[in-house]
Amino acid sequence: MTTRYERYADEIAELIRSQALRAGDRLPSVRQASASRGISPSTVFEAYYLLEARGLIEARARSGYYVKATMATPSWAPTMPRDATEVAISDLVFQVLGSSGRPDLVPLGSAFPSPALFPLATLARHLGQGMRALPPERLVQDLAPGNDDLRRQIVRRYGIDGIPVAPDEIVMTNGAMEALGLCLQAVTEPGDVVAVESPTFYAALQALERLKLRALEVPTDARDGVDLDALAGLLARHRVKACWFMPSFQNPLGALMPQAKRQALIDLLARHEVPLIEDDVYAELHADARKPLPAKAFDRAGLVMHCGSFSKCLAPGYRVGWVAAGRFAQRVERLRLMSSLSPALPSQQAVAVYLAEGGYDRHLRRLRRRLADSRRAMAAAVRQHFPVGTRVHEPQGGYLVWVELPPSVDALELHRRALVQGISVAPGPLFSPTAGFAHCIRLNHGHVDDPRIDGAVQTLGALAHAMA
Amino acid sequence: MTTRYERYADEIAELIRSQALRAGDRLPSVRQASASRGISPSTVFEAYYLLEARGLIEARARSGYYVKATMATPSWAPTMPRDATEVAISDLVFQVLGSSGRPDLVPLGSAFPSPALFPLATLARHLGQGMRALPPERLVQDLAPGNDDLRRQIVRRYGIDGIPVAPDEIVMTNGAMEALGLCLQAVTEPGDVVAVESPTFYAALQALERLKLRALEVPTDARDGVDLDALAGLLARHRVKACWFMPSFQNPLGALMPQAKRQALIDLLARHEVPLIEDDVYAELHADARKPLPAKAFDRAGLVMHCGSFSKCLAPGYRVGWVAAGRFAQRVERLRLMSSLSPALPSQQAVAVYLAEGGYDRHLRRLRRRLADSRRAMAAAVRQHFPVGTRVHEPQGGYLVWVELPPSVDALELHRRALVQGISVAPGPLFSPTAGFAHCIRLNHGHVDDPRIDGAVQTLGALAHAMA
Repeated sequence: MTTRYERYADEIAELIRSQALRAGDRLPSVRQASASRGISPSTVFEAYYLLEARGLIEARARSGYYVKATMATPSWAPTMPRDATEVAISDLVFQVLGSSGRPDLVPLGSAFPSPALFPLATLARHLGQGMRALPPERLVQDLAPGNDDLRRQIVRRYGIDGIPVAPDEIVMTNGAMEALGLCLQAVTEPGDVVAVESPTFYAALQALERLKLRALEVPTDARDGVDLDALAGLLARHRVKACWFMPSFQNPLGALMPQAKRQALIDLLARHEVPLIEDDVYAELHADARKPLPAKAFDRAGLVMHCGSFSKCLAPGYRVGWVAAGRFAQRVERLRLMSSLSPALPSQQAVAVYLAEGGYDRHLRRLRRRLADSRRAMAAAVRQHFPVGTRVHEPQGGYLVWVELPPSVDALELHRRALVQGISVAPGPLFSPTAGFAHCIRLNHGHVDDPRIDGAVQTLGALAHAMA
Repeated sequence: MTTRYERYADEIAELIRSQALRAGDRLPSVRQASASRGISPSTVFEAYYLLEARGLIEARARSGYYVKATMATPSWAPTMPRDATEVAISDLVFQVLGSSGRPDLVPLGSAFPSPALFPLATLARHLGQGMRALPPERLVQDLAPGNDDLRRQIVRRYGIDGIPVAPDEIVMTNGAMEALGLCLQAVTEPGDVVAVESPTFYAALQALERLKLRALEVPTDARDGVDLDALAGLLARHRVKACWFMPSFQNPLGALMPQAKRQALIDLLARHEVPLIEDDVYAELHADARKPLPAKAFDRAGLVMHCGSFSKCLAPGYRVGWVAAGRFAQRVERLRLMSSLSPALPSQQAVAVYLAEGGYDRHLRRLRRRLADSRRAMAAAVRQHFPVGTRVHEPQGGYLVWVELPPSVDALELHRRALVQGISVAPGPLFSPTAGFAHCIRLNHGHVDDPRIDGAVQTLGALAHAMA
């Protein structure tokens, strides 16, 4: 039996779900609600607490309760193009990243977490010892398939998650970036159409641009990812040659696609025989106790190319990535041999030894805790310091937070003003081939030891206030 | 004043130059020559010794003197196509390499020298120590430009050779293979025409195939490289977007382009504004005391992209390559960021520390000596065991020897029969988009410690005898 405050909370949740109450809307004050509904103030309080715990509303200091940003599609759907577009994002990306790469900047715009989060000393030891122990002939033999121990460790980890993957399916790559690009090339020709999330990681757009592919933007919700109805419509109207999606902790939204929706996505793609390039580089950075099953887990047709990496969870800069490439494994492997021959063997050996020695899961638990703390702190700081009308979605993994500013704030201008203050941000237009998301920014909360973060968020908030 | 034996030697040299005497032709015996020319047998002997020292003729046991294979163009010119060709070599390459990659095979077909030639233990120590000493933030900062110490070491080595190269021009890559592919992509669009040597390294053909480029084969001499007259004619008739050449110890011929010819090549390309992708991965493996200056040294227009690597001279499997990319440096760097982000940082750090610690040049001297010994031994063994009509060119660097068999020997069939005997070879058709060089094979003499090599060459010779 539900209590009175639970029933009241459910009513409000339904209003939010139906968009009668929208992200950023202020809830009635406790006194108003109590008076208008004839319920006690404490019942209203209990209901609001419950809704806050469910992540649907948030308290703002001295201002009351607001519907939390869910980054639902409608807020930017009007700018969505209906057709596939040529991609020419790189100049903007390099211009912004070029100016943002200075080490003296507070790295809120960075795509990387702090390297201090990782067991670098242990890895360095395994590098030296691992390479001393490796028979010299392996330095040639391992070039083609990759380090065999490491491939078996990766297969084992898939197995533990209940995902059947054969060692032959694993192609080792120079980071996930190379894996993703090779997958793209394996299933497309120049001019082909590829579906991407909107917004999507700029590196995906750059890969499309490099391979002269056209992007088809699929509306994407910050809570549960790609809009499947929209995708179904696009698949019916366009000859889509691949989808490049990130079901877990999507960059930049942080969206986490629910399991049932992953199944539906896989079914939809199987019906259309469309390969899925699954970017899953944040897989290990989940806030919940359980790692979300990748879409790959639901694939029966061999259409999913699941791309992973140790760069974001263990060994930054080592450039150890891979893809479990399903029916495309041989094609991807050959493309890799033809373009870069092999990823570095010392890096693979160091990670293989690290995994064999144990301690990886302990490291991951600690890493997740630290990212959960900094994620909460970042979201709270944005809520505190940013102007009214700002929507921040607190994702359930990764180290990136997507912030929708009031529409009057130009994110590129904010990026420029922040630079002057010694702060980098990733402005929204980086994440769209059509320069959308002009009032959005992506913030990085992965630099957990950087004492400048709090002040930088406060400064950023002040800049946004001045522009709102 | 020239002596009588010198004049006689010059006469014969002129006959060889004019192709009146051709590679494989038997010279008159000492007795015959002495009788027919009315000169003393010792004068004939002295002349033959001189010609042998000049590399023009060779003695074969119990058989006399023969004109040495110079692999001059005419021997395969008839098969040369006049037009640019689509490239579809990969299936053949992967089929042959796939069957040749077994570690139990005698690796005469390998593209790699023995890893035992390299200071692996020292490198392993620098891996561990270097990464322990590296400030963690460098693991992110170094991703974009690469390891700065290493780039400066590379620039310093260019400087020592008298080649002005700026650090900004150096793009670090995942081995030279990635560098070469990125250079190609930086200056072409799908469908464009690229000039390649004939024969050329199959990986160049695969890169063209991957990027959907067309190959224009330029006749190439096993002694001095690309035929510049032929190239000039092709440049006049075709819209060539780039040349991919290997002026030093060309793979597979071993050709070494003379300095004056390099200057002429650069002048020719500058007149046509055609970029040169200079594959120089064997630069350090010269048999002569002096390292040949790369074509890059003659470049004033910024048109040369000089690709180097530590894979063949110091650190196999580490995947540390680079390109000094002239006016195309930024474009190449951006393409790298868009395709693989960055090469592995531990590998770069290990090589940087190794170079800083000293000992590289000592290692290189030793390596060159060992390769010179095995090169001589391989050439001698082929001369001894292969059928009459076989031409072997002993190159002045690298670890590959090109062998032209009697026209009746099918190299692909020889490759298959050799496999059965536990021996790999690289058959000629791998090195041409038009399946030319059907009677040629490339042999690797870089496995200096492998006791099976001598027996394998003998077996190979017997197989060739049976097919001749």
